[in-house]
Amino acid sequence: MAYKDEQLSEEKVFKDPVHRYIHVKDQVIWDLIGTREFQRLRRIKQLGTSFLTFHGAEHSRFNHSLGVYEIVRRILFNFENRPNWNNDERLLCLCAALLHDLGHGPFSHSFEKVFKLDHEDFTKKIVLGDTEINKILRRVGKGFAQDVADVINKTYENKLVVSLISSQIDADRMDYLQRDAYFTGVSYGHFDMERILRVMRPMEDQVVIKQTGMHAVEDYIMSRYQMYWQVYFHPVTRSAEVILSKILHRAKYLYEQNYRFKQKPTHFLSFFAENVDLEEYLRLDESIVLYYFQAWLEEDDTVLRDLCERFINRRLFKYIEFNPNQQMTEWMELYKLFQAIDIDPEYYLVVDSSSDLPYDFYRPGEEEERLPIHLLQPKKDELKELSRQSDIVEAISGKKRTDHKLYFPQDVLEQLPADRPEKARIFEILFG
Amino acid sequence: MAYKDEQLSEEKVFKDPVHRYIHVKDQVIWDLIGTREFQRLRRIKQLGTSFLTFHGAEHSRFNHSLGVYEIVRRILFNFENRPNWNNDERLLCLCAALLHDLGHGPFSHSFEKVFKLDHEDFTKKIVLGDTEINKILRRVGKGFAQDVADVINKTYENKLVVSLISSQIDADRMDYLQRDAYFTGVSYGHFDMERILRVMRPMEDQVVIKQTGMHAVEDYIMSRYQMYWQVYFHPVTRSAEVILSKILHRAKYLYEQNYRFKQKPTHFLSFFAENVDLEEYLRLDESIVLYYFQAWLEEDDTVLRDLCERFINRRLFKYIEFNPNQQMTEWMELYKLFQAIDIDPEYYLVVDSSSDLPYDFYRPGEEEERLPIHLLQPKKDELKELSRQSDIVEAISGKKRTDHKLYFPQDVLEQLPADRPEKARIFEILFG
Amino acid sequence: MAYKDEQLSEEKVFKDPVHRYIHVKDQVIWDLIGTREFQRLRRIKQLGTSFLTFHGAEHSRFNHSLGVYEIVRRILFNFENRPNWNNDERLLCLCAALLHDLGHGPFSHSFEKVFKLDHEDFTKKIVLGDTEINKILRRVGKGFAQDVADVINKTYENKLVVSLISSQIDADRMDYLQRDAYFTGVSYGHFDMERILRVMRPMEDQVVIKQTGMHAVEDYIMSRYQMYWQVYFHPVTRSAEVILSKILHRAKYLYEQNYRFKQKPTHFLSFFAENVDLEEYLRLDESIVLYYFQAWLEEDDTVLRDLCERFINRRLFKYIEFNPNQQMTEWMELYKLFQAIDIDPEYYLVVDSSSDLPYDFYRPGEEEERLPIHLLQPKKDELKELSRQSDIVEAISGKKRTDHKLYFPQDVLEQLPADRPEKARIFEILFG
Amino acid sequence: MAYKDEQLSEEKVFKDPVHRYIHVKDQVIWDLIGTREFQRLRRIKQLGTSFLTFHGAEHSRFNHSLGVYEIVRRILFNFENRPNWNNDERLLCLCAALLHDLGHGPFSHSFEKVFKLDHEDFTKKIVLGDTEINKILRRVGKGFAQDVADVINKTYENKLVVSLISSQIDADRMDYLQRDAYFTGVSYGHFDMERILRVMRPMEDQVVIKQTGMHAVEDYIMSRYQMYWQVYFHPVTRSAEVILSKILHRAKYLYEQNYRFKQKPTHFLSFFAENVDLEEYLRLDESIVLYYFQAWLEEDDTVLRDLCERFINRRLFKYIEFNPNQQMTEWMELYKLFQAIDIDPEYYLVVDSSSDLPYDFYRPGEEEERLPIHLLQPKKDELKELSRQSDIVEAISGKKRTDHKLYFPQDVLEQLPADRPEKARIFEILFG
Repeated sequence: MAYKDEQLSEEKVFKDPVHRYIHVKDQVIWDLIGTREFQRLRRIKQLGTSFLTFHGAEHSRFNHSLGVYEIVRRILFNFENRPNWNNDERLLCLCAALLHDLGHGPFSHSFEKVFKLDHEDFTKKIVLGDTEINKILRRVGKGFAQDVADVINKTYENKLVVSLISSQIDADRMDYLQRDAYFTGVSYGHFDMERILRVMRPMEDQVVIKQTGMHAVEDYIMSRYQMYWQVYFHPVTRSAEVILSKILHRAKYLYEQNYRFKQKPTHFLSFFAENVDLEEYLRLDESIVLYYFQAWLEEDDTVLRDLCERFINRRLFKYIEFNPNQQMTEWMELYKLFQAIDIDPEYYLVVDSSSDLPYDFYRPGEEEERLPIHLLQPKKDELKELSRQSDIVEAISGKKRTDHKLYFPQDVLEQLPADRPEKARIFEILFG
Repeated sequence: MAYKDEQLSEEKVFKDPVHRYIHVKDQVIWDLIGTREFQRLRRIKQLGTSFLTFHGAEHSRFNHSLGVYEIVRRILFNFENRPNWNNDERLLCLCAALLHDLGHGPFSHSFEKVFKLDHEDFTKKIVLGDTEINKILRRVGKGFAQDVADVINKTYENKLVVSLISSQIDADRMDYLQRDAYFTGVSYGHFDMERILRVMRPMEDQVVIKQTGMHAVEDYIMSRYQMYWQVYFHPVTRSAEVILSKILHRAKYLYEQNYRFKQKPTHFLSFFAENVDLEEYLRLDESIVLYYFQAWLEEDDTVLRDLCERFINRRLFKYIEFNPNQQMTEWMELYKLFQAIDIDPEYYLVVDSSSDLPYDFYRPGEEEERLPIHLLQPKKDELKELSRQSDIVEAISGKKRTDHKLYFPQDVLEQLPADRPEKARIFEILFG
Repeated sequence: MAYKDEQLSEEKVFKDPVHRYIHVKDQVIWDLIGTREFQRLRRIKQLGTSFLTFHGAEHSRFNHSLGVYEIVRRILFNFENRPNWNNDERLLCLCAALLHDLGHGPFSHSFEKVFKLDHEDFTKKIVLGDTEINKILRRVGKGFAQDVADVINKTYENKLVVSLISSQIDADRMDYLQRDAYFTGVSYGHFDMERILRVMRPMEDQVVIKQTGMHAVEDYIMSRYQMYWQVYFHPVTRSAEVILSKILHRAKYLYEQNYRFKQKPTHFLSFFAENVDLEEYLRLDESIVLYYFQAWLEEDDTVLRDLCERFINRRLFKYIEFNPNQQMTEWMELYKLFQAIDIDPEYYLVVDSSSDLPYDFYRPGEEEERLPIHLLQPKKDELKELSRQSDIVEAISGKKRTDHKLYFPQDVLEQLPADRPEKARIFEILFG
Repeated sequence: MAYKDEQLSEEKVFKDPVHRYIHVKDQVIWDLIGTREFQRLRRIKQLGTSFLTFHGAEHSRFNHSLGVYEIVRRILFNFENRPNWNNDERLLCLCAALLHDLGHGPFSHSFEKVFKLDHEDFTKKIVLGDTEINKILRRVGKGFAQDVADVINKTYENKLVVSLISSQIDADRMDYLQRDAYFTGVSYGHFDMERILRVMRPMEDQVVIKQTGMHAVEDYIMSRYQMYWQVYFHPVTRSAEVILSKILHRAKYLYEQNYRFKQKPTHFLSFFAENVDLEEYLRLDESIVLYYFQAWLEEDDTVLRDLCERFINRRLFKYIEFNPNQQMTEWMELYKLFQAIDIDPEYYLVVDSSSDLPYDFYRPGEEEERLPIHLLQPKKDELKELSRQSDIVEAISGKKRTDHKLYFPQDVLEQLPADRPEKARIFEILFG
């Protein structure tokens, strides 16, 4: 199609703090960025509730999506004219990179868990449904929208293309590690991406890394490890996440109980019913959610009101290390104590567990399975799996680490009368 | 009051991308940050509509307020034990620094102009009114809240204290230049703040700069100049600002015409009536505004609907250089041509003018008058005004530069039938 | 010649702190870097005596030469396929960029003044003489070495090519500002080079800048201004420079007086005689100079010994502001007072004047005349000279600023007996 | 002593690219920096031959010494008023930090091995001998110079003081990792030092790290690991090191054979005889060494001349992976083949082995034994050793990794006649 190769008369650039500039030369890319579905990503934070821990982390998914696009653009610039690479798939890669997170909603983590949604489904629906995005993709060519959906869905035939945005060293991860480090201000998250891009080589079914780039990749894996535990799983962020989930649970519960909301949850009805259609989904961004949470500060239901107040004004739960599997007795006792003092433990005594697998050589059959990283050996075009070559990566590969924390409203507990026996006992269990 | 000097048992830090860490040791500061009025600043972007030009500029006023506090903290750390400095005013300075922007609302620039508000009034009301902030300040001591209000209002007796947050080289400007540069990603906005802090000296009624620091100050003035024209007055940002103002005008107009809104502008009513009380003011943050703008995408009024659609989906007006004072004839002809093709020029043909005074030696009696910068001479404790010493600063000092642009919906004009005579004429006037 | 386009089998890179990576793909460039004449630049500091002021400034001219090459490489990458650009001149530009500083000797500034040398002559001699460099250039093609010499000498016919490395915004300046800022650690010297490179356009006889890049260029001009006064003309650096010149003067004088050196100045003989041939010139790098200065610590001549000791152990002269044109009387009195106390004023009472022209619109007929910067206007391919468009640049353009300082050994003066009348008078004149 | 606490009338600062500013307030420190022994460190590169691999790595030990001083200054600023810390030892720590590398000579690594020297011995001699340094230290107080020597020598009684500059997370390492990363330009070497400094706590006999800082320490350990393999043990740097060692060996051998040098090795005589006194040691800096190497380009001995030419003009040896322990047969065959073609294998066939222990929990009785890092647990003031707490550190702790390479002059081998049977066989062994 003529549209496919249509170029802007002059290259456009976006100033980007992470990659300096994001370059757009293809008309299709420019048009996709201009759609309402893509612009909506401006109203969804990349890191959900992390801004309550790291005040700099207020950047949106719009930000990140441009970044992933730019990285893929740079990779493909290096791939041009290399063996194993067919430049006809360039635009497909760029579109998939740009659009891969399109289906994310506000605070996806909590919303998906509470309302049993999957943002990848919605990405597919946006790409294939009756949307501005789809119109543009269809102009590129028959089947192109489907191809884009397949790449994002990891079902596209050419796995090399898929691996650019979904592997253990893909453009998605390379962007978010750097971007999230930049906006939070932490000193982790830096690695020599320019070098990694230079040592990437297309192979039949995956992108591989020249052996000489191994240390840059090690550094990247370590960045990832640090970012997970220092930023993504920060216990304060999880506290906000816990409260957010409980708000959603409570609102749904109240709705099911026919509670009379002062501010009716119009935007949420299909979420409560678990039959959200695309248009309803797209309407729910973070400004809408925050509107409701603020409106609910006026509700009669004390649990909903209190939880919203906690979220909006950042009066979060405190936490202790707590593994419910090993501390079942304490857990049950606490539960009962909370009931005894009229604090509903369903909402106010919450265990949250986070776990991460920093790098994995091979996890067949598991969900979210991602390809291992292969190193291309100097002489014989032989591939070796990263953890076989790197002591550091070997040390952490395949080792899932889990962290359990117990969240509770310490402020409320402290206000209990000093002579209440439950108070003393609760504090004893919590703080030893 | 004991509270005044109450220290946290352990210093708390916030990770900050600009200043690395923000340090809090005073209980008062910690408590102020925790108030709902201060947390509300998280829901107000520091740079209003700039994120539509620079996608990184999504940071909030919360961010900036902490930054100003931190800079003042560092200045005062250097002032301790210096002549002319009374450390009893330390906490006052810190509180004023932290709270100086508390009265900002969403997209202040447009809201203030359209609804004739002044964020400084609201800052004062929050500090002195029935608020969580006020409760905490009153615990410090009698008159303390008033002192904080006075410092922010520049009426406090000790002008040295005032100059820390309101002069031509104050903590406010030093933070926002660096912070806005960081988040937009532009390469301007950098200067050697560490050096400036080291050469600041308290004098009787102002902070002055040792002569040896002159070049660092020059660099700061140039940063400011560049940031104004490259970022703050970016024509695309102003396009979004124009549309935003017109939405507010239209909504007010419709309300006055008794238009029946599908989504009633409940939160806006006192704004339309120009009698906003504090509680109503505090309720209106950016999430609320964006909620309404999205709801109004369903309104019958085509102007309101179209403008909201433009703002939400970033379909901005295009612009040309246009000085209405010098191009009165074209202006009037365009106005009539727009009327002829049924595009209301009140909303769709808008001149916006920006002007900045990069540095001023002295502007008595003008609004926004700020103290000039004085350099402390090596031997005789003599002061010299900066522009007398610096060629560069002299070159730009006192010179107001104004930029006029005309904004219009080019997309609509292009869709006019080719044979309409107005179309040809409009394009001729606009693009020559 | 086939050699001209000969490419390395795989691109080589140098890790560079300023440009991240320096990329070499041409065999010629790779071979030139490997010559002894080019490797010699490792033994010559880019900033001469500045390391005695800024301890980080220990980087060599080797460093900078690679940087200039890399910038030109990036400019030409953008020029490919543009009108007005003939890619056949690519290799010529790259070679000229790489080799433009080849003729620099140790501490060029002082050596050139004292011994009446010109490093540009030596660059030409290296390029055209019997050298490894010349052999490689001749392999490219007949006349190629001469072309390279002409470009460096600014006499090459195509002025567009010349302007890449010798104009007021050339690759030379863009590299050294950033590099010297990086290694000294000062916060000046930063500007958005990536943007400048993107807005550069080849015209018939010069590189011009698109109007939209004006602010980036302003920022660059300001960086240059700041670097000159904050780094290059730093008074402490000039103190070391003064001592260095006086060492050279003294050694020459002693030689002419048939003084019997313990360490004979073999390497310096042709310098003293002012008839240095190429081979002798190339042998004199900074390690050789420092060898002699250290050997001369053992000389009988007290002036030579003392000056060497000052240079080697950084016991520099102090300075005051002093304009000999306006302070002729004091100057003559000081001169006589120094003689009276047996401190030879020829060596120990030295005026040094530095002056800089930050940007010049046009200085016909002057030495070191460089082309002004032209801005390419959006519509009509019209050019406008920068200072006509930019208030800031206009303010400083064509304005030469000169700074005069008087250097003297304060330590010696302080050790004079307190009752010597000359002492009191000298201190009175110097410190008022 | 009065001198001990003598303060400069005004704080002096050095602009430093790594720590931004280095602050000096103590007269003693200022005076020590001014001595000839300390200034000599400007003529000794921090990374020896690494500049031949990373052209930015031209920084001196002067640079690093100031950096270590500054870090200790910042640590002690945080220690003031903490339990376990006696501020009377502040100046001792600062002096030891500043002077700890004073005894380094040019290219220490090779010189120490070839001539059986130990830079720590010379540090002690400079501190305790008849030097400018010693004079200043003695002015502080009786026994002070000895204390400084003891701290550097790790024999000082208070092990807490020793651990500041000699442990596995001391100021020495924290400076060089960051500094060497900065000057080489590699992206490793970054970690959050500010955070580490904030979580350091003085204990009875060591500095420990609060548990909350564990991840910052992990990051530091990883930086160190990467810097060792990516920078310090870079095979090209080791090639230069090999050649340098062989030059020294050859010169010594020739001297012992009564070879008649054109340029007599006056400065080297006591090194050859292995009885170097302090004054001779101090005279030998890198400018002297490079003077000789250049002079030796004129020698008759072809081996010495060739090796010097290789070092000066960077014509280094190539290398392959080669473990002589496992490849004894090839090694012996190569040795004989080299002899057969008249290339002396003693100088031209060299195995170099590097090994590093990234972190060690405990190595009693080994040389260079350094204290493990202890983490201070939140509640009970209990200490836990780092590798027990950190998976990553555990993975690499105590594991010595060794890398063997074989160096040889590939250029010479390639010039052998094609029909020489040794040539084919040598290439077969080397490149398989």
